[in-house]
Amino acid sequence: MKETVLRFGIDRRTLLTTLALLPALSALRLPVSASAQTASSGPLPSWNEGSAKQAILDFVRDTTDRASPKFVPPEERIATFDQDGTLWVEQPIYSQMVYCFDRVPVLAAQQPALREVEPFKTVLSGNREAIARLSTQDLEKIVLAALAGITTDEFEVEGKKWLASAKDPRWKRPYTELVYQPMLEVMTYLRANGFKTYIVTGFGQDFVRLYSQQVYGVPPEQVIGSALAVKYDYGKDGKPILIPEPKIMLNDTAAGKPEGIHLMIGRRPNASFGNSTGDQQMLEYTAGGDGLRFMGLVHHTDAVREYAYDRQSHIGKLDKALDEEAAKKAFWRAFRALGEWYSDFPPY
Amino acid sequence: MKETVLRFGIDRRTLLTTLALLPALSALRLPVSASAQTASSGPLPSWNEGSAKQAILDFVRDTTDRASPKFVPPEERIATFDQDGTLWVEQPIYSQMVYCFDRVPVLAAQQPALREVEPFKTVLSGNREAIARLSTQDLEKIVLAALAGITTDEFEVEGKKWLASAKDPRWKRPYTELVYQPMLEVMTYLRANGFKTYIVTGFGQDFVRLYSQQVYGVPPEQVIGSALAVKYDYGKDGKPILIPEPKIMLNDTAAGKPEGIHLMIGRRPNASFGNSTGDQQMLEYTAGGDGLRFMGLVHHTDAVREYAYDRQSHIGKLDKALDEEAAKKAFWRAFRALGEWYSDFPPY
Repeated sequence: MKETVLRFGIDRRTLLTTLALLPALSALRLPVSASAQTASSGPLPSWNEGSAKQAILDFVRDTTDRASPKFVPPEERIATFDQDGTLWVEQPIYSQMVYCFDRVPVLAAQQPALREVEPFKTVLSGNREAIARLSTQDLEKIVLAALAGITTDEFEVEGKKWLASAKDPRWKRPYTELVYQPMLEVMTYLRANGFKTYIVTGFGQDFVRLYSQQVYGVPPEQVIGSALAVKYDYGKDGKPILIPEPKIMLNDTAAGKPEGIHLMIGRRPNASFGNSTGDQQMLEYTAGGDGLRFMGLVHHTDAVREYAYDRQSHIGKLDKALDEEAAKKAFWRAFRALGEWYSDFPPY
Repeated sequence: MKETVLRFGIDRRTLLTTLALLPALSALRLPVSASAQTASSGPLPSWNEGSAKQAILDFVRDTTDRASPKFVPPEERIATFDQDGTLWVEQPIYSQMVYCFDRVPVLAAQQPALREVEPFKTVLSGNREAIARLSTQDLEKIVLAALAGITTDEFEVEGKKWLASAKDPRWKRPYTELVYQPMLEVMTYLRANGFKTYIVTGFGQDFVRLYSQQVYGVPPEQVIGSALAVKYDYGKDGKPILIPEPKIMLNDTAAGKPEGIHLMIGRRPNASFGNSTGDQQMLEYTAGGDGLRFMGLVHHTDAVREYAYDRQSHIGKLDKALDEEAAKKAFWRAFRALGEWYSDFPPY
């Protein structure tokens, strides 16, 4: 089934110029053993033969062969991955935003006054058009209200309960199954070659940590994301607790991504993967180090198996940004050249 | 030499009630292979036989034996270590503070106006008594000035240069050699049993990351410490850079330690080691989890081989705090009981 869809379902040119394939509905349960399972077809079995696949194979060969001038010692091998739109589906709305919306009725039951306060009133109205018109500031208010105020232990219970029951309306499957099989294979392949794989997400790290091991084979301590300040305190039983406050400590998107990487890893990644303007600085930061670097962009061009929003959205803006910046900065030209060599910038 | 000092140099009672032994002058070069090197004498070869050593052996046995009801899966095994006073000597002054003092003349050469501004003027005077009287606020000003303003790449160069040349005035050796051999052995032993070892330090994480792998066998990404906010920018060549700002983002001491652990690991440690009131909350947070927990305190009672400041300083205050809190909180009583069983609270 997977073979059929991947090899014959869409035209070859689309496949060659995209990394974003089917939301890999069967991939969830075996992310770590994916390469073992398909060893007969070599690494990256879901990938079409082509320049993108070859670039990844070349990068790994050159950085792991002790005889190569580009060899990187195992303990220094770091690869970072954006999540939304890079590892799993981000359309039509970020899954964690759905979680936050779903928390609003719970919060309103606890604090009835919220029913009369915007933007909570709009969310509770269920009016989809009005909800879609909420401003970024309104969405931030909802996120802060949804994530703060309960202890980290309570959040773990609530979040896991939601993840186990919530389903994507189009795919009718849990959000944790809407992951990109080809990208799981890249992660597995890099780990098999000594790379530590990190998720670097603009959304909340505490949320992603609830399922990162199960879904991606990435332990919680290798998830970097936006984070609220937390306050240490004691519960009623005198036991220590941590309570997130409605105050963003790390805004892990755009410039916040290299800042978060420095804070939590303290090394510059050798490879990174993203799909949008929010990943631009992480890709730049990766490119700016010495030695061989890999910057990969996931393109979204397949409306049947997921969503086609490539040029209309972040990715188009990033591509445009690269062109504009390239005119100004020598470094950007080098990055573009590297990118064109080592990742999948399509030849628009 | 080491054997002689350890076994006969001080009286037995002191050894039994202390974990803080000789600054392990010969330990630096072989932290990772320490256990292999001394395999004939079993794990923790520098430790005297006694309740502290036995408690560590028991903890590891109970958490790693699949048949044990206290078994912890390998991927969940986390041990955290304070650095100053727990892994290396913190007397008479934190080494990183010496680095910051040594930066002041460099800064004054670049910005001559600093020569007339306090507290820099006092530091430049070389008047030791006046320097010793500087307030915490003054010291913070010096730290911020010393650590901010140069890129993270420049700091790496400067910091490594300093570490290679600076020497402790009493021991006439690099600061990176003034580490506690018994604690290196604990780290090695825990790692050999599947624990991830983290350093959780109140001082700057970027500084400790310069030598953590070499000295402790701990990679930079497993160092959590105080951190300045960093700003992403582009250098003159257009390449991306990160510049620390004179603004503390994470103050990783006291309550900041569990907060930092949550931020960077996202799991509660199974074991933690500290020596002062700044470690109290980390020890509490460790104790507050389910299953078997280990909280270890390093005592400083040996004026000959390092410094005797146990009851006069942080550690005495922590011990007193435990007594006072125990009267108020049931949880504290449980912690004390666990602590008395599983770590080395001396019977004052």
